[in-house]
Amino acid sequence: MTTEQAALPRIATLRAQIARGTLTHEALVAQALEGATAPAARHVFTRLYADAALAAARHADAALKAGVQLPLLAGLPVSIKDLYDVAGEPTLAGSIACRDEAPAAADAPAVARLRAQGAALVGKTNMTEFAFSGVGLNPHHGTPVNPTDVAVARIPGGSSSGAAVSVALGLSVAGLGSDTGGSIRIPAALNGLVGFKNTQARVPRSGAFELSRTLDTVCAMARCVDDCLAVDAAIADTPLAVRRRPAAGLRLALPQTLVLDQLDATVARAFERTLDRLSAAGVQIVPLPLAELAEISTLNAPGGFSAVEAFAVHRQRLAQRRAEFDPRVAARIALGEAVSAADYIGLHDRRRGWMARVEAQLQGFDALLCPTVPIVAPPIAELQASDDAFFKANGLLLRNTFTINYLDGCAFSLPCHAPDELPVGLMLASVRGDDARLAAVALAVEAVLQDGEGAR
Amino acid sequence: MTTEQAALPRIATLRAQIARGTLTHEALVAQALEGATAPAARHVFTRLYADAALAAARHADAALKAGVQLPLLAGLPVSIKDLYDVAGEPTLAGSIACRDEAPAAADAPAVARLRAQGAALVGKTNMTEFAFSGVGLNPHHGTPVNPTDVAVARIPGGSSSGAAVSVALGLSVAGLGSDTGGSIRIPAALNGLVGFKNTQARVPRSGAFELSRTLDTVCAMARCVDDCLAVDAAIADTPLAVRRRPAAGLRLALPQTLVLDQLDATVARAFERTLDRLSAAGVQIVPLPLAELAEISTLNAPGGFSAVEAFAVHRQRLAQRRAEFDPRVAARIALGEAVSAADYIGLHDRRRGWMARVEAQLQGFDALLCPTVPIVAPPIAELQASDDAFFKANGLLLRNTFTINYLDGCAFSLPCHAPDELPVGLMLASVRGDDARLAAVALAVEAVLQDGEGAR
Repeated sequence: MTTEQAALPRIATLRAQIARGTLTHEALVAQALEGATAPAARHVFTRLYADAALAAARHADAALKAGVQLPLLAGLPVSIKDLYDVAGEPTLAGSIACRDEAPAAADAPAVARLRAQGAALVGKTNMTEFAFSGVGLNPHHGTPVNPTDVAVARIPGGSSSGAAVSVALGLSVAGLGSDTGGSIRIPAALNGLVGFKNTQARVPRSGAFELSRTLDTVCAMARCVDDCLAVDAAIADTPLAVRRRPAAGLRLALPQTLVLDQLDATVARAFERTLDRLSAAGVQIVPLPLAELAEISTLNAPGGFSAVEAFAVHRQRLAQRRAEFDPRVAARIALGEAVSAADYIGLHDRRRGWMARVEAQLQGFDALLCPTVPIVAPPIAELQASDDAFFKANGLLLRNTFTINYLDGCAFSLPCHAPDELPVGLMLASVRGDDARLAAVALAVEAVLQDGEGAR
Repeated sequence: MTTEQAALPRIATLRAQIARGTLTHEALVAQALEGATAPAARHVFTRLYADAALAAARHADAALKAGVQLPLLAGLPVSIKDLYDVAGEPTLAGSIACRDEAPAAADAPAVARLRAQGAALVGKTNMTEFAFSGVGLNPHHGTPVNPTDVAVARIPGGSSSGAAVSVALGLSVAGLGSDTGGSIRIPAALNGLVGFKNTQARVPRSGAFELSRTLDTVCAMARCVDDCLAVDAAIADTPLAVRRRPAAGLRLALPQTLVLDQLDATVARAFERTLDRLSAAGVQIVPLPLAELAEISTLNAPGGFSAVEAFAVHRQRLAQRRAEFDPRVAARIALGEAVSAADYIGLHDRRRGWMARVEAQLQGFDALLCPTVPIVAPPIAELQASDDAFFKANGLLLRNTFTINYLDGCAFSLPCHAPDELPVGLMLASVRGDDARLAAVALAVEAVLQDGEGAR
């Protein structure tokens, strides 16, 4: 069922190969750029920066030859989501409605920081229009196909759809994306990658096309936890102080509300197996009622942050060029129109109270865990054909991940499926600002999961 | 024209008297409590804490006798505005509509920090209901009379009306108040005191009854700049690092837009005289167009932060007990009802852009200066009698001070009138976070103004 297309080796491995002289940055980037135009990568990129990426790769090769100590991402192919400002071009965020708008005056800070590390930015990746869904369909630019199933064209997940496929196909070591309700973790889970949604405040959001100012997070997905941390250190302009620790002795909360509902058979099986494996490794898994998770849908009504805040951003555009919007996205944004300022302020207040209650419950745990997404990637055709199927799948895809955005927390998604299964993600999450501790947990859990996999 | 009622000596003087044994904390606080029940102090306090204040004073006396080094405010009478939580009592914020609500579970942080210094909290001071006007009338609890004119009962200014009169009458060394659009600086100006509106982020706002979460600032007024800084250090839990400097060489911007319009004769005369005095002392005063000040009324429409955010807080209460509201306050709050979430988000975005433009213009200046309030305190009776007169005066009172709240800046109001004039305030202001530099400017300017006053 799985494909021959494969992600690149982890960054440390690539750097070792390059140091040994068996690979060059230029060859790696040239191969990525070639792959980006191959059929499997159809709809993955909205724009390629071939010359600039090759120049960055050659520069890294030359610097290495001259004995310079290279930053971790120097000369390595990295993709950036279509919603980031790149100086000189209009920022489309997966749309066509913005194509005539003013070009960005400067790179977004996250982009500028990757560039400052010498990363070879290979191109901008396709996404759900304006980042407003977890599915990853894009009617304007086409939908990148999830490469993990050669038999059926499945959704990539979204909104960072192209970002995930760019990494899964080995066209980049990492994809800079964003996560408002799960947009990094969902495609990471569905493509067998690691996604890290850091705490929102870690990375400036300027120059990132806004969906929800309250929830938007600038973050990335990659091949493994270490590679996610390399990108995080670059875009946050400061590394997390991670104190590595063994899995044995970790104390993880397993919420009994919401996040275990409606698991499909593959996810249920992979998750059970993962719990067994972690327990066997000495991880203490503690069932926690966490009934608060059931309150979110009520507390975040009417409208919810994303619809309200997106409407504020798109009001003019929606009035003038609604026909150019993905109708499903337009319908969701339009829900924000009827919300009053007082209701919106109420959303913030209710969220704050909820956060305090959940934070109190999570004290004493190293993280919580649950499946990132309750289902494996559905076929694209099913969701294209039916609004009902689309919105039902969208709700399920976002359900677990959104709880952590609502918490203003941080979370990883790690692959936890067997080689013959469709990808399934394990989410590890914690409260706001707990990124460094969570990273240590993710590294320890990743090591346990990889031990169990044998050849993988 | 001025009254015999007088503010207390400055804190340093009081402490010196106490150290010499010519005064005790207990005597000072007992005198304050006695004064609080005298006719001149009618309507100044909504509640007195006689026993607790005397206990704090006696404790300070005993500690001093034992050789303990006392914190600056220990044992000294300080008043707190009616909108701060004090554990065990409902927080009324000048209203009657809240009298049946749940008592506060804890002291507001600002109150707790004053108490931790050993301050003798003499009582809660009257205010404009819910802090929503700069005039200071209160139809429920009565209006404190401005003590600076024995001939005519003039407004105290608001919303921290009782706070100002408590200091002006010598019933406290400082009044903890709040400033959303000028609520510290206006009454300070009209009562001949110093008011310091610090940058909003310096002091936690929890436990302060909310008017506008975007603009509310926890701050105080006192007899002089040093005393304001003593309170600021306590409530911010960290002193400003003030580097004292001479007035000569200061470079102050004098905005030519809005803030010099419609000055009454007393204010115009006092302000001109102040400019002359400062120039003579070597202060460089630079006219600055600052046309941005004229944009605020448009940018802050529709509704404005205060109406929108107050409506969100009061929606239930207004629906259930509108008859118990001051009708003028209810009318202003109700303006927030019709504002949409998107419009409210637009208010924030427009403010952010405006702030950046104004901050850029103020670079290279040590502060800006202008009259705090363009008019002297109007008679209470005139504003009670006419809504037109009330709203016109309210608009004028708030006009200059509000610019700094909108800037998220910091500002002092210093008395700049002659002994035979009604009080006039000089506002010195700067950008967000520039509190320490502004404090040095205020100290230098204060010294120049006091030099010129001779016997005062």
